[in-house]
Amino acid sequence: MVSFESDYIAGAHPKVLDALVRTNLEALPGYGSDCYCKSAADKIRIATGDKDADVFFLVGGTQTNSVIITSYLHEYDGVIAATTGHVALHEAGAIEGTGHKVLAIDCDSDENYGKIKASTLRQYLEDFYNDGNHEHMVAPGMVYISHPTEYGTLYTKNELTAISGICREYGIPLFLDGARLGYGLMSHDTDVTLEDIDRLTDVFYIGGTKVGALCGEAVVFPRIKTPESSVSDTKSKSHPAGFNPEFIWHAGEPSHFVTTSKRHGALLAKGRLLGVQFDTLFTDDLYFEISKHAIDMAERMIQIFHDKNMRFFLESPTNQQFIILSHEENELLKDKIAYSFWQKFDEDHIVVRFATSWSTTDADMEALEKAL
Amino acid sequence: MVSFESDYIAGAHPKVLDALVRTNLEALPGYGSDCYCKSAADKIRIATGDKDADVFFLVGGTQTNSVIITSYLHEYDGVIAATTGHVALHEAGAIEGTGHKVLAIDCDSDENYGKIKASTLRQYLEDFYNDGNHEHMVAPGMVYISHPTEYGTLYTKNELTAISGICREYGIPLFLDGARLGYGLMSHDTDVTLEDIDRLTDVFYIGGTKVGALCGEAVVFPRIKTPESSVSDTKSKSHPAGFNPEFIWHAGEPSHFVTTSKRHGALLAKGRLLGVQFDTLFTDDLYFEISKHAIDMAERMIQIFHDKNMRFFLESPTNQQFIILSHEENELLKDKIAYSFWQKFDEDHIVVRFATSWSTTDADMEALEKAL
Amino acid sequence: MVSFESDYIAGAHPKVLDALVRTNLEALPGYGSDCYCKSAADKIRIATGDKDADVFFLVGGTQTNSVIITSYLHEYDGVIAATTGHVALHEAGAIEGTGHKVLAIDCDSDENYGKIKASTLRQYLEDFYNDGNHEHMVAPGMVYISHPTEYGTLYTKNELTAISGICREYGIPLFLDGARLGYGLMSHDTDVTLEDIDRLTDVFYIGGTKVGALCGEAVVFPRIKTPESSVSDTKSKSHPAGFNPEFIWHAGEPSHFVTTSKRHGALLAKGRLLGVQFDTLFTDDLYFEISKHAIDMAERMIQIFHDKNMRFFLESPTNQQFIILSHEENELLKDKIAYSFWQKFDEDHIVVRFATSWSTTDADMEALEKAL
Amino acid sequence: MVSFESDYIAGAHPKVLDALVRTNLEALPGYGSDCYCKSAADKIRIATGDKDADVFFLVGGTQTNSVIITSYLHEYDGVIAATTGHVALHEAGAIEGTGHKVLAIDCDSDENYGKIKASTLRQYLEDFYNDGNHEHMVAPGMVYISHPTEYGTLYTKNELTAISGICREYGIPLFLDGARLGYGLMSHDTDVTLEDIDRLTDVFYIGGTKVGALCGEAVVFPRIKTPESSVSDTKSKSHPAGFNPEFIWHAGEPSHFVTTSKRHGALLAKGRLLGVQFDTLFTDDLYFEISKHAIDMAERMIQIFHDKNMRFFLESPTNQQFIILSHEENELLKDKIAYSFWQKFDEDHIVVRFATSWSTTDADMEALEKAL
Repeated sequence: MVSFESDYIAGAHPKVLDALVRTNLEALPGYGSDCYCKSAADKIRIATGDKDADVFFLVGGTQTNSVIITSYLHEYDGVIAATTGHVALHEAGAIEGTGHKVLAIDCDSDENYGKIKASTLRQYLEDFYNDGNHEHMVAPGMVYISHPTEYGTLYTKNELTAISGICREYGIPLFLDGARLGYGLMSHDTDVTLEDIDRLTDVFYIGGTKVGALCGEAVVFPRIKTPESSVSDTKSKSHPAGFNPEFIWHAGEPSHFVTTSKRHGALLAKGRLLGVQFDTLFTDDLYFEISKHAIDMAERMIQIFHDKNMRFFLESPTNQQFIILSHEENELLKDKIAYSFWQKFDEDHIVVRFATSWSTTDADMEALEKAL
Repeated sequence: MVSFESDYIAGAHPKVLDALVRTNLEALPGYGSDCYCKSAADKIRIATGDKDADVFFLVGGTQTNSVIITSYLHEYDGVIAATTGHVALHEAGAIEGTGHKVLAIDCDSDENYGKIKASTLRQYLEDFYNDGNHEHMVAPGMVYISHPTEYGTLYTKNELTAISGICREYGIPLFLDGARLGYGLMSHDTDVTLEDIDRLTDVFYIGGTKVGALCGEAVVFPRIKTPESSVSDTKSKSHPAGFNPEFIWHAGEPSHFVTTSKRHGALLAKGRLLGVQFDTLFTDDLYFEISKHAIDMAERMIQIFHDKNMRFFLESPTNQQFIILSHEENELLKDKIAYSFWQKFDEDHIVVRFATSWSTTDADMEALEKAL
Repeated sequence: MVSFESDYIAGAHPKVLDALVRTNLEALPGYGSDCYCKSAADKIRIATGDKDADVFFLVGGTQTNSVIITSYLHEYDGVIAATTGHVALHEAGAIEGTGHKVLAIDCDSDENYGKIKASTLRQYLEDFYNDGNHEHMVAPGMVYISHPTEYGTLYTKNELTAISGICREYGIPLFLDGARLGYGLMSHDTDVTLEDIDRLTDVFYIGGTKVGALCGEAVVFPRIKTPESSVSDTKSKSHPAGFNPEFIWHAGEPSHFVTTSKRHGALLAKGRLLGVQFDTLFTDDLYFEISKHAIDMAERMIQIFHDKNMRFFLESPTNQQFIILSHEENELLKDKIAYSFWQKFDEDHIVVRFATSWSTTDADMEALEKAL
Repeated sequence: MVSFESDYIAGAHPKVLDALVRTNLEALPGYGSDCYCKSAADKIRIATGDKDADVFFLVGGTQTNSVIITSYLHEYDGVIAATTGHVALHEAGAIEGTGHKVLAIDCDSDENYGKIKASTLRQYLEDFYNDGNHEHMVAPGMVYISHPTEYGTLYTKNELTAISGICREYGIPLFLDGARLGYGLMSHDTDVTLEDIDRLTDVFYIGGTKVGALCGEAVVFPRIKTPESSVSDTKSKSHPAGFNPEFIWHAGEPSHFVTTSKRHGALLAKGRLLGVQFDTLFTDDLYFEISKHAIDMAERMIQIFHDKNMRFFLESPTNQQFIILSHEENELLKDKIAYSFWQKFDEDHIVVRFATSWSTTDADMEALEKAL
C-alpha cells in the first residue's frame, strides 16, 4: 500500500547511502572529529553565508531540542513554545527531564496554526515582568519556534524579524527547530532564506532525518554580527544587572557543546555516520533539490485534493497537508492508502495528515489519485 | 596509516550495509514498530534462549546506560559501579544528569582490572546498611558491570553468579553493559554464555556500535525464571517493608520504556536503521562470527607483542591490549601506526591501547608486525 | 496600617511560641526523631482516624509539594494540576526541577474557580489513553488538588469522592495540598472532614505555616483500607501489565521518605522545631479552634463588604476574599489598609485579595469597616 | 543524661527566642522582604567589611549547599569536594539531584583531615585539562570547602589564599560552607577572619542552625574587589574562549537567587523567622560571643580528655573532638553520657564524636568529667 504516513517512511536518499558505502572501510577517528564532519560543516557554513558559524551533528530531533535548550537555559529559566510545539507536546517530557518548564503560549488559528505571533510573545514577556509575583515564576529564558511548524506552516521574513527583535530586546536567545527546514526553504510561498535564519536566530538546526538522511540533524550556532544581531549598550529588559551580548552565544563554545552532547547520550562514537550524510546532502545542493521535489509533490497532492473535493483542515505551503474526513470516509479510505491520524475535529470527523518527502514518486501520486 | 585506535574506526560490516541498501526504499512505520525491529528482537530472543525477553534498540552506549539506569532507579537511589566503569568516568556526568549518583567502588588490580569483586560488593552493601547515617546517604539501587570491562577483562561464570546472587539477596537489579559483548562471548578464555547473562542479570545490552553496526545497542530485559532468579519469600535486605520480586522488572513494561527512551532523545524516528542492522547481525550467527574474527586477530596481536618483547600493562582475553611504552618508544612508534593513549604509567612511561575489531585485516597485522 | 495582605503576616500562635520557649533547652536528637515529632504524629493519627498513617514534618509548601510529587512519580510521569494550581504557576518550576511536567488542565469558572472537575479529569485521562501518540507524551502519574484552592474554594464530599474514584480506577495516586487545610475544614460551607481526606486521598498535608505555625507542614500517608480505597483485582487502566495496589503507597516507606526529604534539603536538623509546633497545634484542638476563628472573621469581612457594596470577584467559603476594584478605588484604599493585588480584571479594574487568619482581631475588622 | 551528641541538640539561644517572641505579632511582608531580614543583612555586611555584599537567608545546610552549587554550575559542570565533604557523603545525593556530579578528591590525613590541599587541587585541575578525554568527563566548575570541616579542622589563611588563587587562575568559583563558621572564627588556633573569607571566596554561608538559631543559614555573595579577586586580562585556563570576571558572580543577581531558592523549596513564606534570628545574632556580636563560649568549652573538654588519658583520633581546634574507644569502653560509657558514633577505627575500636556548642554548660563539663 502506498504510504503518505510521514516524511520518514523511507531510508536515505540513494546518494547519501552510496557515500556511506563508498567510505565504509576508511579508518576514521570518532566523535565527530573525522574529515567528513569537517567537510560537511564547511559546506553548511557556505550555505548559511556565515563563515564562522559553529556546526555540530546530532542524531535526532527530540535529542537535538533538549541538548540545545538545556545548553542555553539558566537553572531558573523555561523555554517559550507554542502549545502545539513539538517540545511542548510530543517529546515525552524531554525538556522537563532537563529540569526546565516549557512555557506554552497559544498559537493562532487558520493560516497561522502552529506559529507564535510576535504580538503574543511581546505581551507574554511584558505581562511576565509586570507581574508582581514573577520572582516566584519560571523566567522565560529562550524562545523556541519550529519552521516549518508541526502544521506545515511558515513564518514570513517580517514575522521572523519581529520575533528576533523582541528576543534581542529582552536578551533571550531565539532557537529555530528546522527538523523539516528543507521543505520550508523550498516552499513556493516563502521569503525566508537560510541566510535569514542564520542572521535572525541564535541557534537553529537543519533537519536530516526527514530530509534525505537515515538520521541526523545539523546544529548551527550563527556567529555573524549584523545591525540586527547587536544588542544596544543599554541594559536589556530581562537582565537589569547588565546584559553581556556575548553571553547568549556561550553555549556554542565547542568543547562545552561536545560535553553537553555526550552527557545527553547524543555524541555518536561513529560521528562519520552523520558527517558523511550531511557532506553528501550539502554537495551540489542535494538537500535543496530533494526538498524541492517534496514540495512539487505536495503541490500536486493539493491539486488532487481540490479536484476530489476533499475538505482541507489546513492547506500548508510545505510537505504536510491536513484533511478532514468523516468516520465513514476514513473507514473507506484507510485500507487503500496510508496516512496518519492527526486529531479529532468534531464528533463525526477527524483530521488526518498526508506527508510527501524526497522519496515520494509520481507513481505514489497516481495511486493517491486513484484511491480517492 | 594502519589504525588500532579503537574498535569503532570503520563503518558497518558489509553485510549490514548491504541490508540497509536492500531495504532502503521500503515504506516502513517509525519508532521501532517496523518488521525488521520485530524480526531482530525475535532472533535475539532465540540467541538468549529467553522466549519472553523484551528487546529494544537504542543508538549508543552512553545513551543506553543512562536510559536503563534511570528506568530502574528510585528517586533516592544511586548505581554502584567500578571506579573505572564507563558510567563513572567517561560519560560526562550522564548518570548524574538524570539525578543519580554513581557509587564508585574500587576495582581490583592485575587480571581483575575493571571488575567488581563479589566480596567487595557484599562489603559495600553490608557497610551501607550498618552505617547509622545511611538514611542521609545515597542508597545502592542497582549494580552496573561491564563485560568485557573497559580494560578488556571478563567475569567468570562463578564471579557473575556470585554478584547476581548478592543483587538478588539485596533486591537490587544487576545491569550488564555489553558494549563489546561479542568480543567477550567469543574470547578463548571465558565460560560465560549469552544464556548465562540472560539468566543472571536483570537487564543487559548487546553492543552493535563496536561490533559490526554503524550504530545501535540491543537492550534485553530477561523474563526467564530460574531458581537463581527467584527471590525468597522472606523480605529482602534492602526493602524491609516487603520486597516485590516483580518490581525490579517493571522498567521493562514496553510502553514505558519507549516513553523513557523518547524522553531521553533515544527513540529513533527511523527505527529501521537499528532493526535492519541487528536483524542482519543475528542472522546466521554473523554477530558471533565477526566477533570471533576480532578475537583471532587479538590473539595474533598478543603473539606479535610477545615476539617483539613489548611490555604488557594488561594482556586481556578480548580485543583490547594495553602496552607500556616509554616516551621515547612512543615518539618512534606513533607516526608508524595508530593506537590510543590510555593513561600515565609513571614519569617515564605511558599505557597505550591497541584494539582489534571485526574490521581488522591480515594486512593490518602484517603492518603492525613491520612497524614494531 | 492594618493588614489583610496574606495569612502569613504574623509569627506563630502564642501557644505555639510558648511551647518552643518551654522546651528550648531540652537536649533532643535531630532529624525528626525527637519525642515531640512522635507525639505530634500520634495526635495527627488520632485526628485523622487512621491509626497506621505515616506522618512526616517538612518546612514549607513548595518544598512539600515537590518532595511528595517526586516521591510518587515514575521517571516518565507528570502530575495533573489545575492551571491555577500552585505547582503549575507559583513555584518557580520546582516540579519541573525534579524532572516532571505539570500537566495543567483548565479549571472551571465561578464558584468552581481553582478546582478540577471530575468530568474534566476523566475526559483528560480517556483522551490521553486514546491518543495514538500517547507513548510520546508525558503520562499522567498523579493528580494534585488543593483544598482550599488558591482561590479559597472547596471540594464537596461528592466531588472529592468522584475524583478519588477516578484516580483509583486508573491506578494513579491522589495528592491533596492542604496548605490552608484548617480554613477548609472549619468553613461553614463544607461537608468534607479530615477523616474523609485521609480515606479518599493517597497523600495529603496539613498546613502549619498559614495556620498558626512559624513554619511547617505535616505530611500524611493514609494507611486505612476501606472499600473505596481498594483497587479491583482486574488490571488498572493505566497499568495494563498489572497493577499492584501496594505500589502507590511505596513512597511512604519511612526510611525512603526521610532520604528523599534530605535529598531535597527538606530535612531539618532541629526537627523539634516542627514537632513542638504541631504537637501544640494538635493539643486540645488548637488547630481547629484557630482555624474557626479565621472563618468567623472572614464571615464578618464578607458582611462588611456586602454592607459597603463592594463588588465580589469571588465570595469564598474560606479565609480569602476576592474583590474587584477600579483603579481609582484602589488608589484611594491602598494607603488605608493593606491587601494584595491578585490579577487584572479588565482595563479599568483589578482583582485584589483580603485574607483573614488565626491572627486577625476584632480591631482589624473595625479598622477595615472604617477604611472602606 | 548529659549530651554532647551534636551541636544542634538545643533550640535557639535565649536572646534569639526572645526576639521571636517580641516581634511575633507584628504584621510583616513575606519571602524575606521584611525589615528584620534587611537589618540582618546590613549587620552582616558590616561584619564582613563588604558594604555591597548580597545576603540571603535559607533554612538549612543541605538546602543551602544545593541551591548555591546549582546556581553557579553550568549544565556540564561538577563540583570538586573532599571525599569527606558533606556534599559528597551525607546529603543523600542532593547535588546529583540537581544534575551535577560531586568530583570527590582525597583529603589528607592527620591534622589535615577533611581539608583539600592546594597542591592536590592544582594537580587535579592540571590532570583534567591534560587528559585527552576531558571533553567526555565532568568539568570542574566550582570548588567546595567547609570551614570548619566535617572533622572540625580549619584552613590557615595561607592555605585559603592558595586555594582561592588557583580557583581564580582557572576561573572557577570558590564556595565555603560555613555551617559551623562561628566555631572556626573563634578558634584559638586560626588566623582566618570573616573579612578574609569574604575577600577570598566567591560565595559562603554563615551557619545559624548549629550556632544559636532554631534554623537558618546566611548566604553571602562577596562584592568587594581586591587585587586577589581580580582576574587578569589574559584568558583563564578553563575558559579558552575568553573569561568574563563578572560571570562567576552572576548567581548573586538578587531576583534570580530568590527564584532559584523558591524553585528548590528553600524560600520561607515567613522569612521573618530567619531575619529576626540573624538580626539578633549579629547584634552586639552575639554570634561571635556564643561561638567563643563553645570553643572555651571545647578547650576544657580537651583538657578533661587528656587528664583522663583518652585516646584522640583528632584533637580539633574547634567544637568537635574525636575520640577512639574500644568496644568495651564504649559499652561502659554510652549509658552515662551521650555522644555520637563516627566511624569504625579497627576491628576492636571505634571513633566517636563529642561536640560542644553555644548551649554547653559548666554543669555539662562537670558531668563529663565525672562520667569518664
